[in-house]
Amino acid sequence: MIRIAVLGCGRIGVMHAANIAAHPRATLAGVYDIHAPAAEAVATKTGAKVFQSAEAAFASRDVDAVLIATATDTHAGLLELAVAAGKPVLCEKPIDLSLARVNACAAKIAGTSVPIQLGFVRRFDPGHSAVRKAIEAGDIGDLHQVVITSRDPGLAPEAYLKVSGGILRDMTIHDLDMARFILGEEVTEVFATGSRLVDPALMDRLGDHDTITVVLITASGKQAIITNSRRATYGYDQRVEALGDKGMAISENRRPHEMTLHTASFTDRAEPLLNFFIERYREGFDAEISEFVEAVEQKRAPSVGFEDGRLALVLAEAALKSIAERRVVAVKEVS
Amino acid sequence: MIRIAVLGCGRIGVMHAANIAAHPRATLAGVYDIHAPAAEAVATKTGAKVFQSAEAAFASRDVDAVLIATATDTHAGLLELAVAAGKPVLCEKPIDLSLARVNACAAKIAGTSVPIQLGFVRRFDPGHSAVRKAIEAGDIGDLHQVVITSRDPGLAPEAYLKVSGGILRDMTIHDLDMARFILGEEVTEVFATGSRLVDPALMDRLGDHDTITVVLITASGKQAIITNSRRATYGYDQRVEALGDKGMAISENRRPHEMTLHTASFTDRAEPLLNFFIERYREGFDAEISEFVEAVEQKRAPSVGFEDGRLALVLAEAALKSIAERRVVAVKEVS
Amino acid sequence: MIRIAVLGCGRIGVMHAANIAAHPRATLAGVYDIHAPAAEAVATKTGAKVFQSAEAAFASRDVDAVLIATATDTHAGLLELAVAAGKPVLCEKPIDLSLARVNACAAKIAGTSVPIQLGFVRRFDPGHSAVRKAIEAGDIGDLHQVVITSRDPGLAPEAYLKVSGGILRDMTIHDLDMARFILGEEVTEVFATGSRLVDPALMDRLGDHDTITVVLITASGKQAIITNSRRATYGYDQRVEALGDKGMAISENRRPHEMTLHTASFTDRAEPLLNFFIERYREGFDAEISEFVEAVEQKRAPSVGFEDGRLALVLAEAALKSIAERRVVAVKEVS
Amino acid sequence: MIRIAVLGCGRIGVMHAANIAAHPRATLAGVYDIHAPAAEAVATKTGAKVFQSAEAAFASRDVDAVLIATATDTHAGLLELAVAAGKPVLCEKPIDLSLARVNACAAKIAGTSVPIQLGFVRRFDPGHSAVRKAIEAGDIGDLHQVVITSRDPGLAPEAYLKVSGGILRDMTIHDLDMARFILGEEVTEVFATGSRLVDPALMDRLGDHDTITVVLITASGKQAIITNSRRATYGYDQRVEALGDKGMAISENRRPHEMTLHTASFTDRAEPLLNFFIERYREGFDAEISEFVEAVEQKRAPSVGFEDGRLALVLAEAALKSIAERRVVAVKEVS
Repeated sequence: MIRIAVLGCGRIGVMHAANIAAHPRATLAGVYDIHAPAAEAVATKTGAKVFQSAEAAFASRDVDAVLIATATDTHAGLLELAVAAGKPVLCEKPIDLSLARVNACAAKIAGTSVPIQLGFVRRFDPGHSAVRKAIEAGDIGDLHQVVITSRDPGLAPEAYLKVSGGILRDMTIHDLDMARFILGEEVTEVFATGSRLVDPALMDRLGDHDTITVVLITASGKQAIITNSRRATYGYDQRVEALGDKGMAISENRRPHEMTLHTASFTDRAEPLLNFFIERYREGFDAEISEFVEAVEQKRAPSVGFEDGRLALVLAEAALKSIAERRVVAVKEVS
Repeated sequence: MIRIAVLGCGRIGVMHAANIAAHPRATLAGVYDIHAPAAEAVATKTGAKVFQSAEAAFASRDVDAVLIATATDTHAGLLELAVAAGKPVLCEKPIDLSLARVNACAAKIAGTSVPIQLGFVRRFDPGHSAVRKAIEAGDIGDLHQVVITSRDPGLAPEAYLKVSGGILRDMTIHDLDMARFILGEEVTEVFATGSRLVDPALMDRLGDHDTITVVLITASGKQAIITNSRRATYGYDQRVEALGDKGMAISENRRPHEMTLHTASFTDRAEPLLNFFIERYREGFDAEISEFVEAVEQKRAPSVGFEDGRLALVLAEAALKSIAERRVVAVKEVS
Repeated sequence: MIRIAVLGCGRIGVMHAANIAAHPRATLAGVYDIHAPAAEAVATKTGAKVFQSAEAAFASRDVDAVLIATATDTHAGLLELAVAAGKPVLCEKPIDLSLARVNACAAKIAGTSVPIQLGFVRRFDPGHSAVRKAIEAGDIGDLHQVVITSRDPGLAPEAYLKVSGGILRDMTIHDLDMARFILGEEVTEVFATGSRLVDPALMDRLGDHDTITVVLITASGKQAIITNSRRATYGYDQRVEALGDKGMAISENRRPHEMTLHTASFTDRAEPLLNFFIERYREGFDAEISEFVEAVEQKRAPSVGFEDGRLALVLAEAALKSIAERRVVAVKEVS
Repeated sequence: MIRIAVLGCGRIGVMHAANIAAHPRATLAGVYDIHAPAAEAVATKTGAKVFQSAEAAFASRDVDAVLIATATDTHAGLLELAVAAGKPVLCEKPIDLSLARVNACAAKIAGTSVPIQLGFVRRFDPGHSAVRKAIEAGDIGDLHQVVITSRDPGLAPEAYLKVSGGILRDMTIHDLDMARFILGEEVTEVFATGSRLVDPALMDRLGDHDTITVVLITASGKQAIITNSRRATYGYDQRVEALGDKGMAISENRRPHEMTLHTASFTDRAEPLLNFFIERYREGFDAEISEFVEAVEQKRAPSVGFEDGRLALVLAEAALKSIAERRVVAVKEVS
């Protein structure tokens, strides 16, 4: 049994804690939150211990590994502490909103053999990962084009958006990682364009965009296209398509159930899509924990690590520069 | 070029005439209708000749074959005349509503080498026939169960229903033929049940049913299930499913197009189904003419013939007896 | 928190124990199994207590309710003990394979106010229950036909089949309950036919069938059709369709994920279906526990109870009689 | 009856001739081809006259309108002759590969009231046009993003590609028109990138690309993305998606039929897509003729005209400039 402590008992931390408790080869060693009642509520339900500080969790002999689900600006510091304590760590994305801070963190942990996993949960989605597996199996031949559709069900509150780092660093970053995951080859050039269509007044205030298209190009000419919107009224729209010279693989949206209605006015009418990420990526969150448990058991690097988190942020920076300058930006210009 | 005369210029005759005129290896030799203006309208558009009688068409040297699309009660007689004249014939179903009359016709034409094709158009539907081909190719192994869903978009007018011969002989008969086509083995036993749900008062007056379930069983125990309704508000519902010991083949409904709508209330909302048979079986009607042209060219028996028409009627009779006696009826009891 | 004891730690009991432990308003009070190590394994993972006997669980003050997941022939006895002890009970289906024993049990517990829930999990499947909700909401108007497709991914071992009570009491019984659930009106007549196609030699030895069609008819003429097979190579096939005078609702199969493959030979190729019931009805098993927890909290009768278990068995008996006598059997003949 | 002459009896001209002959309100007045036997073959089948020259058709009193389906480099000249003769004209796309030549033609025919229709058949596809209609009906609210997937089933022969004008002017041009059709607002900026992935050696020789992504932006910030490939092994891939602030409309691929196969290895396996445009856009070609017939009858401008042909070419030129300069190109830079 791998004994895992969860730092941060917000919505996503509570979910991770429950998944760890239910996992056949892991136990919930304890929980911590800056707001004590949040940690206590999890402890009551699961029987897990409450840590009085993150440091206490790192110091505990009863903790084999930690999961960081605290506020974004604490991620890099806690990650450094985890590595210093020799505790394998699963860190929610992003490492930090500042590329400079991420690079500093990278320098500090350079050479560590402590397993570090980044919380890019979508790589563990059964559908999206099946696209990657189909490519690896040669089912679609050499990859040519990747199309990622990623739209949130609705705008987050202004308070959240203000500190989110902007749509590229907050939302698109998942898709930039997905593009790297599916492409299997590094991106060398980026083009992006942003519009203010969902809530122009709010976006003006924030200096942000709500509608984004990104085109990524690799050295060999492979193309990946990302389309983002902050509002898909029909639900959380998450699709991945890969075209190769022998075929195509598509990971379509997942629904709450498969009931359809047919009347004199329409056929095949289904429910809106699963909303939001905790429901949509339920299987992915389970598989993410399994990957972490296995990496800890085998003392190996997880399949998605720190450098993946850093490179996704580099692509976000390149996209921001492309939006500003209305031209293709070479990745090496920003990294 | 096979020169084909069309007898009967109602809705289905007009469609057949157009299909023949457009066919690359056939020409429309002429048309006849008891109501002359109906024939003349077709002639004006296509440049085809108008025959003053069915007999004139049978007698003409410029006619290689005939298509019978006249009123049901004239089919058997015209078919006998066609055979006597040595003209290959494509006859719309049913041969006759009376099994005795059909048997008499069979006796009269016994031994003829004139190609006779019955208008069971659904056998030529690309989807339904692909189910049969999948079975023949061994894709689903030995056949175990067939499920045929067949529902009309709405009740026909009472005037039509009165002379239709009842739901079993008028509507289910297509599905009984489809069951024979897919099963590839003769049915030995029949169970059927009928209800009056769509329009109970009308059905009471007609002594008919509007909602039917038929179970067909072959000597080896294969099962075919037919569900019929006189009203599917969502359109003309036409599905065929075959389960075998290695897999399943399904021919799903065909739509007018593939546009779907997704909003805050629903996803995947599509148009109602194609309505009615001329639209739904457009490709089937084309292929049916091709089969006839080819059979005439090659002087061979068409893939669906007189005996198929007769046996479908036998199964309808067995189903009617089952409804009356509420028990399994052996096919040999009625044939 | 409702404290629930789980009796029986086979595959399904272990799953229920984990679901109870993970449920926000329930805790796993303890477990029991005739084979002690099975119970201990669950206890180790969850921290729950091990009971030395079922009686100990019924007697415990720390147990608010019990879930019976032991061998079938112990269900009725344990259920009687639970009622005697005043403990609300969720009992896996079937109550017993003998209708006489079930009737005796019914007599013994007559008049009890203890909540009793039967484990017909499919009623809680989000898709299937959405069909029922659509009917209740009037979305499809008056119900006319129900078509239930229910096929196992493969034959269970002979040892299991021998004690299963036969396909009607073991497998079809779920579909008979689903038909009652969807129809919303009692079945008055039953027709059934059985074949030996999947493994004829084995079925001959067992005196059982592996391929079943059942037609159920209500007093008002509504029709429900069930098609069963012991082997669907493509996975666990679970579909429910309801036709009404205003429309149709279909609950389609659920898949492990939505990745499809498209090549020069095919398009839309998806994975085989989820296999088997624990995976397919994952959401249903969660919702079943929620219903039980809520019923216990509210001291009310669960939405699916003892009489539902008894009536499904009555329909199975009527179907067996129909197979034997090849005629429609009135339900009152067997109940 | 509108009497239409068809100029050019290649594959697409023959198809148009047959569609005109079958149209209820049109007749095929005659055909012309530079290669006389091609015209004669059509005449034999349809009974239409053979014109000895295009001029003869323009001069004929028995011709109400003409359809131009000759070689691309003759389109502009014939179009000018048609306008001079006062004959309404349906001209296959492109008007010309040279924007200068198109502009010269525009100048020459400026002010004409002769109905001119451009052969952008995809606007008449029932699915794609239903997307446009959904937008006009307000079903998806204000439009934000359009995603057009357009991939040919395979590379055309080198001889064809050499004279095609390149992928942007030959293939993407259809999608550029579709983007304008769906956007309902003029494009002001274009970004494009091209790769050589399908056949790099051939593309090097031709100085062309086989894999294209285009991003189009309107003044209000609406985004349209086009992904093109010269090879989709799974068939002719033609999809249109529109996202608005109230919902989404998708026109999915059309299939030859709806039969799917399910085995132990897979489920839902369908046939490759319809291949190629004559099959895929069958309904569209019918509707295109209907629009032309109606425009001629009503002496009105067709819904898609000369300027649409010119503007699509302008966008293609802007995309070519963007590929060369790796930056966003303003449409006014090229027009």
